[in-house]
Amino acid sequence: MTFYEELLTGYNIDLNHSGVSGERIAKRLDEISRIGAEENNGVTRIGYSREEKRAKELVAGWMKEVGLEVSMDGAGNVFGRLEGENKGPAILSGSHLDSVPKGGNFDGPLGVLAALEVVEAWRQTGYTPPFPFEVVIFSDEEGSRFNAGMTGSESFMGKMKSEDLDNLIDQEGNTFDEVIKIYDSSREKFLNPSSKEKDIQLFVEVHIEQGKVLEKHNQPVGIVSGIAGPAWLEVTFEGQAGHAGNTSMENRKDPVIAAGIFVSEIEALPRKVSEMAVATVGKLKVLPNGVNVIAQEVNLMVDIRDIREETRDRLIELIYQKAEEVADKRGIEVTWNLNTKIRPLPIEKNLQEKLANVMDEMNIEPIYIPSGAGHDSMIVGEEIPVAMLFARSRDGISHNPKEWTSLDDCVLSVHVLKKFVEKEMIEKAD
Amino acid sequence: MTFYEELLTGYNIDLNHSGVSGERIAKRLDEISRIGAEENNGVTRIGYSREEKRAKELVAGWMKEVGLEVSMDGAGNVFGRLEGENKGPAILSGSHLDSVPKGGNFDGPLGVLAALEVVEAWRQTGYTPPFPFEVVIFSDEEGSRFNAGMTGSESFMGKMKSEDLDNLIDQEGNTFDEVIKIYDSSREKFLNPSSKEKDIQLFVEVHIEQGKVLEKHNQPVGIVSGIAGPAWLEVTFEGQAGHAGNTSMENRKDPVIAAGIFVSEIEALPRKVSEMAVATVGKLKVLPNGVNVIAQEVNLMVDIRDIREETRDRLIELIYQKAEEVADKRGIEVTWNLNTKIRPLPIEKNLQEKLANVMDEMNIEPIYIPSGAGHDSMIVGEEIPVAMLFARSRDGISHNPKEWTSLDDCVLSVHVLKKFVEKEMIEKAD
Repeated sequence: MTFYEELLTGYNIDLNHSGVSGERIAKRLDEISRIGAEENNGVTRIGYSREEKRAKELVAGWMKEVGLEVSMDGAGNVFGRLEGENKGPAILSGSHLDSVPKGGNFDGPLGVLAALEVVEAWRQTGYTPPFPFEVVIFSDEEGSRFNAGMTGSESFMGKMKSEDLDNLIDQEGNTFDEVIKIYDSSREKFLNPSSKEKDIQLFVEVHIEQGKVLEKHNQPVGIVSGIAGPAWLEVTFEGQAGHAGNTSMENRKDPVIAAGIFVSEIEALPRKVSEMAVATVGKLKVLPNGVNVIAQEVNLMVDIRDIREETRDRLIELIYQKAEEVADKRGIEVTWNLNTKIRPLPIEKNLQEKLANVMDEMNIEPIYIPSGAGHDSMIVGEEIPVAMLFARSRDGISHNPKEWTSLDDCVLSVHVLKKFVEKEMIEKAD
Repeated sequence: MTFYEELLTGYNIDLNHSGVSGERIAKRLDEISRIGAEENNGVTRIGYSREEKRAKELVAGWMKEVGLEVSMDGAGNVFGRLEGENKGPAILSGSHLDSVPKGGNFDGPLGVLAALEVVEAWRQTGYTPPFPFEVVIFSDEEGSRFNAGMTGSESFMGKMKSEDLDNLIDQEGNTFDEVIKIYDSSREKFLNPSSKEKDIQLFVEVHIEQGKVLEKHNQPVGIVSGIAGPAWLEVTFEGQAGHAGNTSMENRKDPVIAAGIFVSEIEALPRKVSEMAVATVGKLKVLPNGVNVIAQEVNLMVDIRDIREETRDRLIELIYQKAEEVADKRGIEVTWNLNTKIRPLPIEKNLQEKLANVMDEMNIEPIYIPSGAGHDSMIVGEEIPVAMLFARSRDGISHNPKEWTSLDDCVLSVHVLKKFVEKEMIEKAD
């Protein structure tokens, strides 16, 4: 069975109304999924890769077909603009098309296609919105290339500094300046993107939940109440390389063992600061990585999150202390670097209530969910009002080829988004 | 200061006698060191790489200049043959030119150059040995490409089976059949190398100690009493990938933590079986290795050694148990594969004594040292008598750019090798 057929299996055709088409969404999810496809529905579409670029070109084609005016800024962010009946600030909606290595097919693409489907539906029904509406594809949300996520939305918000870019080197040794060339851009254009001047009144993002709350409450769509800001801490343990056969166990300064103890002991730290807090080591590199060589160095990344900045920062402190404690005990050098530290974002109560009203009308019980994952909304939301919707994830699995959201839930999220945007615009026009 | 100049600093010129030249050895060590050179004297010259091939071509050129008949077998092992006054079985001497990633400049090259220097010295003094002498460069001693060392000497001894080669895939996904093409060879030629028919009476290898025993005893050269056989155990922990922000600490099956506990707890196991035993994790890979992704899988190699087979195998058992215990406790799958398991090699007392006699004449106190590291001698020694000499290593450091053996100690090892070979041949001729 193809991914398209799998999506359509059991689809409730009654959800095709008001110009919204489940088949179109399924077909487009399928087409995007082929770019960077891995085994078993997995996908690798890293930020600033050829795959991310091809996916954007595919979606930009659809934008043009439906009559949007397409543009790209210095970060490779793609915008598709629909003018409204009146001039005035636009509502922006979208997400990203990049993925983590061997990730899934909904994280990002659903938000882009949901926004685009709103336009498709309007065209089908001959509706012109009172104000401009823009669909956006942000670059590099996942940050898998540089260990620094959301560079696309950060550029859009004019939040990047030149010195931030100096430290960005990918695993193949490419600098940021080299990598950004894929979008015919430069550091100069990235730091001063044309899109910064846009007049945006509101950003709305649809995204999969990546958790189990909606599944537990048996609801298709939920309201995001706030976003946990991630901090990414790079930790390097440096020991002394040597021959694995000729160095006695007592005479070693083995950074792999120090890293092993560190990784296993930080597991207990998040619950010391809060129930929601998490700390994860998912990226780790051993140097020189020879089977018969005691390692010289282990370099790893700790992803640290909580919904409140204060407790998140206390957790960072505890992790620093643990790294130092482990290194000291074993005569190993430790250094660290806080690559990313994003403030957790609370979402306006007023906007949450408006989403709840739309959902009430559709007989969806409004469930409020804090997001543990960071999103482009978090960056945009520092200056522009943001609303965010979650679509139900099966088993809460994400960043994994098994990631799944039923087509019913995808389409319901489009209907909620569409009604919400229409209401916002009408309210503004009155 | 160049590596050549560094080697010659403080060199005792009185060691230049009987045709042996310290300057020539230093110059050649320097030339080899440039192939695959990394920062700070480090070198990366992996088995079956362009760098290993270029180093062999360089040395083969020197072999031809001094009048040796050069040949290569199906494993890419290079031989330089000098005929003797009589026909009869040859004495073989040499080592390897490949290195670990970011390794040093003496591990391997010294043994090749020492054997070649014996021929240079004979030519200088007009001496023809009673029997044939061959200098050998074995391929891929370190095994850094396939996690399976000494494939060159194993092919030479006809010990490789076709099914052994099926599992050899390097980090770039190349099969053994692809990699061996660098030496214009094939699986067929590798399994049936021309060199297998050679008539060899004895193999002698000079190698750096890679430990601190000679330094402690203040002796330049020592006698290897036996070689610890390494076992290489590949262990894979498989958990469940997920989003680092949206999966609570309690709901995780994180293989990085399982691997961390495993790595830190096996450190205590070697001393349970013997004083000499060691276990090392120097190679480890996280999949998919994304900063915001709970890993799916950790794959690592454990290098396990002891001088006695029985205790080494008991240690393997303890490590199996530990892997299972850790995985069970955390609901993680564990699988393993014993890639390499080489029998420890005792060295004939009679040959050790003959080396001691030569050293006595040179006022070197004979120190007997078991080798924790595996060597080509270990493979050759399963069927052919083997003698082995260690040259003193500074601080015992090896598999590291800081690896160092003074030129005095290099040259003294050549003198011991030369006298020993001459005596062996004369004894045979009598």
